[in-house]
Amino acid sequence: MLAEFDLIRRYFMSPQEVTAASNGVTLGSGDDATLLTPTVGQQLTVSVDTSVVDVHFPREAPAFAVGHRALAVALSDLAAMGAVSRWCLMALTFDQRRFADDQATHAWLSDYSRGFRSLCQQHKTVLVGGDVTSGALSIGVTVMGEVPIGDALTRSGAKAGDLIAVTGALGGGAGGLALWQKGERDETHPLMRRYLLPEPRLAAGVALRGLATAAMDISDGLLADLAHLRERSQVGAVIELDSIPLAEGLLEALGEEAALAAALSGGDDYELLVTLNPNNLEKAQRRLVSLGLALTVIGRCSETLGVNASDQRDLGNYAGWQHFSGETP
Amino acid sequence: MLAEFDLIRRYFMSPQEVTAASNGVTLGSGDDATLLTPTVGQQLTVSVDTSVVDVHFPREAPAFAVGHRALAVALSDLAAMGAVSRWCLMALTFDQRRFADDQATHAWLSDYSRGFRSLCQQHKTVLVGGDVTSGALSIGVTVMGEVPIGDALTRSGAKAGDLIAVTGALGGGAGGLALWQKGERDETHPLMRRYLLPEPRLAAGVALRGLATAAMDISDGLLADLAHLRERSQVGAVIELDSIPLAEGLLEALGEEAALAAALSGGDDYELLVTLNPNNLEKAQRRLVSLGLALTVIGRCSETLGVNASDQRDLGNYAGWQHFSGETP
Repeated sequence: MLAEFDLIRRYFMSPQEVTAASNGVTLGSGDDATLLTPTVGQQLTVSVDTSVVDVHFPREAPAFAVGHRALAVALSDLAAMGAVSRWCLMALTFDQRRFADDQATHAWLSDYSRGFRSLCQQHKTVLVGGDVTSGALSIGVTVMGEVPIGDALTRSGAKAGDLIAVTGALGGGAGGLALWQKGERDETHPLMRRYLLPEPRLAAGVALRGLATAAMDISDGLLADLAHLRERSQVGAVIELDSIPLAEGLLEALGEEAALAAALSGGDDYELLVTLNPNNLEKAQRRLVSLGLALTVIGRCSETLGVNASDQRDLGNYAGWQHFSGETP
Repeated sequence: MLAEFDLIRRYFMSPQEVTAASNGVTLGSGDDATLLTPTVGQQLTVSVDTSVVDVHFPREAPAFAVGHRALAVALSDLAAMGAVSRWCLMALTFDQRRFADDQATHAWLSDYSRGFRSLCQQHKTVLVGGDVTSGALSIGVTVMGEVPIGDALTRSGAKAGDLIAVTGALGGGAGGLALWQKGERDETHPLMRRYLLPEPRLAAGVALRGLATAAMDISDGLLADLAHLRERSQVGAVIELDSIPLAEGLLEALGEEAALAAALSGGDDYELLVTLNPNNLEKAQRRLVSLGLALTVIGRCSETLGVNASDQRDLGNYAGWQHFSGETP
């Protein structure tokens, strides 16, 4: 059994420390708390997300994906604010007794920390605090980012007449999970990648500053998340179902109706849902194209509250996607 | 079953929002992330702590104490840095199915949130983010404080010749747990209070800025924590065992030898362990007295690494305190 501090030092500290000094970290792990130097003129934006085994991811998910995913879902909240990610803290609860021997524990922790840390590096995020405790597998990640004062994207700025748009494509998270539950284990399958290794849209969030009137990330499913945005902004929405960009391989895997349901209410996509004045669409699309990312208009905000499909299809038909609950294998 | 957002709003949001605006919070819970305004000229100090049922506290611990304690142990890390606490985030994982009915769930959550929030208020700490997930009871708390640039207390500044001192009294955490395990449930017993409702020494940490050469909080037990401080500062220590202040009621509850063992290696005390130049002792004691808190010298830092008792008693005899592991009822 490894002690907490050894664990943190061995799996989570070393390469971080190289970049720490240049990222506003005065004192890293090893003291009671870490000292950080926020940037003057920026607001700090913070969020916490917990990923629990059998609730948010299957018990047999690859350790690399568990680490990547736990951080990705938290970073996605910073992306939705238009923030740059700077620091994170990780509270890992896991049960060493679950593993056959120390070697198995080591293999799992190595893969887990590689998944977590490679995403840290990709987004220049320094792990500045950690806690390792014994118990059922669960990862709590606190992320801290910065955004110039007044530039943050929120859920409350959408106006009637604004376009509704999404980055990337939808349904991949739910589609990948559906494949996983059918026994698919090929991690290179595009849908599996979308489910296991979601990519937080941080660069897109920054690019949409000053253009999007409202933004949030799609974690619970387009319709559920759009409901939050509509409520905060006090607008309604008309959705063009045929415009919704479907994730690569989704139609083939699920068929037309289930694919649309996955895109509308499957969740786990971690794309951005934004609203913007029609005059800003082209500029926003140009900026995202330079990031290799599509921005697709899927509807428009209306004064009449509520949500409808432009072709009058009943959206209730697509709300019944079965979310992962751990009751399935 | 209550949905996450309803839970957070119902139990954790309302009275917080009144004070939020005056505490640097631009945008509270309800968006993807919260926007905070750090104070110019201050460093941000952050830490995360997880409290897991059956590992860090007994399953039957009062809900009020579970909430209080989860935050207290995290705040204690800020106290050890000499920081003022400003914000916190709480990731609560709990299993609604554990409760007999919605009324029992409500009762538990009410008491839990009262425990958490009353300590927030006591230390002017605003809950700025939360996540509620389903699973075995566990609370991850991220705390964020501020300290003027250069004023933070760390573990690494102790010098040979410095005095070693502790705030308050020791052994109460372990003594209270020992009583709990014997079936004691009177929460007004002084030892039980110390175990169930530890008080993070935030005001003492601030008062010791500029006086303490090193500081940390005592969570794992005096000897274990002193070992971390010695290692970081590269000093040894000589301890006067008869000087160690024992928590009220500890001698009566455990007898002399067990009481000393509880104080030396019991843990869960959340007092501050500090070193300071002898010239600063009186000033430091005066400041703490004004907070109603004793600062007791228990030894001195030496050049020779390692730790010894001044009367040559074998400290190994006191290292074997049985920490709570959940295997006991």
